[in-house]
Amino acid sequence: MPTFPSSAVVREVGLRDGLQSIQTILPTPLKQEWIRLAYAAGQREIEVGSFVPARLLPQLADTAELLAYAQTLPGLRASVLVPNLRGAESAIAQAAHLMIVPLSASHAHSLANLRQTPDEVVAEVARIRAARDAAGSKTLIEGGVGTAFGCTLQGRVEPAEVLRLMQALLDAGADRVSIADTVGYADPRQVSELFEQALKIAGDRFCCGHFHDTRGLALANVYAALSLGVQRFDASLAGIGGCPHAPGASGNAATEDLAYMLASMRVDTGIDLRQLLKLRAQVSEWLAGETTHGALWRAGLPKTFSETTA
Amino acid sequence: MPTFPSSAVVREVGLRDGLQSIQTILPTPLKQEWIRLAYAAGQREIEVGSFVPARLLPQLADTAELLAYAQTLPGLRASVLVPNLRGAESAIAQAAHLMIVPLSASHAHSLANLRQTPDEVVAEVARIRAARDAAGSKTLIEGGVGTAFGCTLQGRVEPAEVLRLMQALLDAGADRVSIADTVGYADPRQVSELFEQALKIAGDRFCCGHFHDTRGLALANVYAALSLGVQRFDASLAGIGGCPHAPGASGNAATEDLAYMLASMRVDTGIDLRQLLKLRAQVSEWLAGETTHGALWRAGLPKTFSETTA
Repeated sequence: MPTFPSSAVVREVGLRDGLQSIQTILPTPLKQEWIRLAYAAGQREIEVGSFVPARLLPQLADTAELLAYAQTLPGLRASVLVPNLRGAESAIAQAAHLMIVPLSASHAHSLANLRQTPDEVVAEVARIRAARDAAGSKTLIEGGVGTAFGCTLQGRVEPAEVLRLMQALLDAGADRVSIADTVGYADPRQVSELFEQALKIAGDRFCCGHFHDTRGLALANVYAALSLGVQRFDASLAGIGGCPHAPGASGNAATEDLAYMLASMRVDTGIDLRQLLKLRAQVSEWLAGETTHGALWRAGLPKTFSETTA
Repeated sequence: MPTFPSSAVVREVGLRDGLQSIQTILPTPLKQEWIRLAYAAGQREIEVGSFVPARLLPQLADTAELLAYAQTLPGLRASVLVPNLRGAESAIAQAAHLMIVPLSASHAHSLANLRQTPDEVVAEVARIRAARDAAGSKTLIEGGVGTAFGCTLQGRVEPAEVLRLMQALLDAGADRVSIADTVGYADPRQVSELFEQALKIAGDRFCCGHFHDTRGLALANVYAALSLGVQRFDASLAGIGGCPHAPGASGNAATEDLAYMLASMRVDTGIDLRQLLKLRAQVSEWLAGETTHGALWRAGLPKTFSETTA
């Protein structure tokens, strides 16, 4: 029998990973309302956007404004994605709780998406760490190793390379590291095998699993990681985001389904599922015309639900 | 790190559990074609129907004909569901490989669906065993304990009652037993806890897990059971079947997604996924207008797929 942590964090990435991948540009006041309602439903970690040039991702052009708004909500840990030192400087200037620097373990994907080799990204993390420390900032640095289970461009990605890059990120000054199955290739056995090694290397500095549900395995993958003691998972409300390589396929694990699984397993997330389901209905209305995903919103909570949870 | 079996069986139940729950009545020649193509794709266990009165389930009125057809395919283990001695006599007369007798651990569900208490079903299994033995038949008897994780009518179902009934089925002469999450209430922690006890009671006579994907957890539940050594799982092509209590929700785990997860995990199922995906496309065409489910059919196999499997 596996053992499970008593609590876990569902980190909302729908406002970044979700919205960046769909056509609809959600107006800033609606994004703020999303953040406010997610907070009201008990979510305490939200990735609000990405500090990239607005011409590249117009959907996320209001990241600075959203970060400022999120910082008005007591106890909310707002994070932003930063692809480079320039983005990191913005996050530091605004005193974000956390900045996530993505690194692609697939060299082909790294060159295509970031125009840098993975090791060049590691060097950038060292510069980000130096800038953070020079500014006397408390903004945490998370190095996120993506395409960790394979890549649509390159195909296979060696686990040893994923682990080498994770170690390099820690050596370069990342406060913590995470692993992402960017394209939905992972299965729970691969997750068990890779995450066990990652935990050996990074210990409690290994902080998060990010799984895409492209082939339906996101929650099984979360379960495999949870069984090893991992306590933070990225998720996107209504599973928005999709995959540019698989039209119609899901994006990240759906926040509401993941939160439900954890609650049913008596792993405390602090989330009120009924409120979260209302928010899901609201957001899917705002995103009318976009494909949404997930199962719980259709089926509703089990009759036994209030009995089986605290 | 959990260990995994080197092989597992995906038992197709779409022709029974799937078709009985939807409006479309698939003509017998198309059902035969489904069986033929599933066999060609490598499936070796198929539940072809149910020996119930045709007025109750007109969708399954051709079960005898389908069983006869399935028996022409060498090595195919065709099973049928039998709700009582009368159905069992039909299965015995036709020399089915296996008959599955459903028992509902929820007393409320048992009375509503079978008009019998669970213990009356146990007594019927004893009569079925006597009839089987008297006929000198080799048809195996599987006692399937359903609503094992809760019930939409009764709410909570005690694990101790599930285990008591499982033991009673074995004592009454069932050759083997299985557990079903009939309404999609199970989470992988509950599966781990209940299946561990079930395996202690039944050993290798515990033969199958049957999970509905109503709330998106079917594959996580399979993974939890697989980690304990369970080697057979029911699944329905395209996840057809749904749940009468949750319009639009999925039925059983989708065969193709489950077969993909197992193959990716290097658990041999004997299934050719490309052929299975072609069959899925065919069946969903036959069932045009019905809701289908699953993720793999949209996303396709990963680029790495042929590399990671034997």
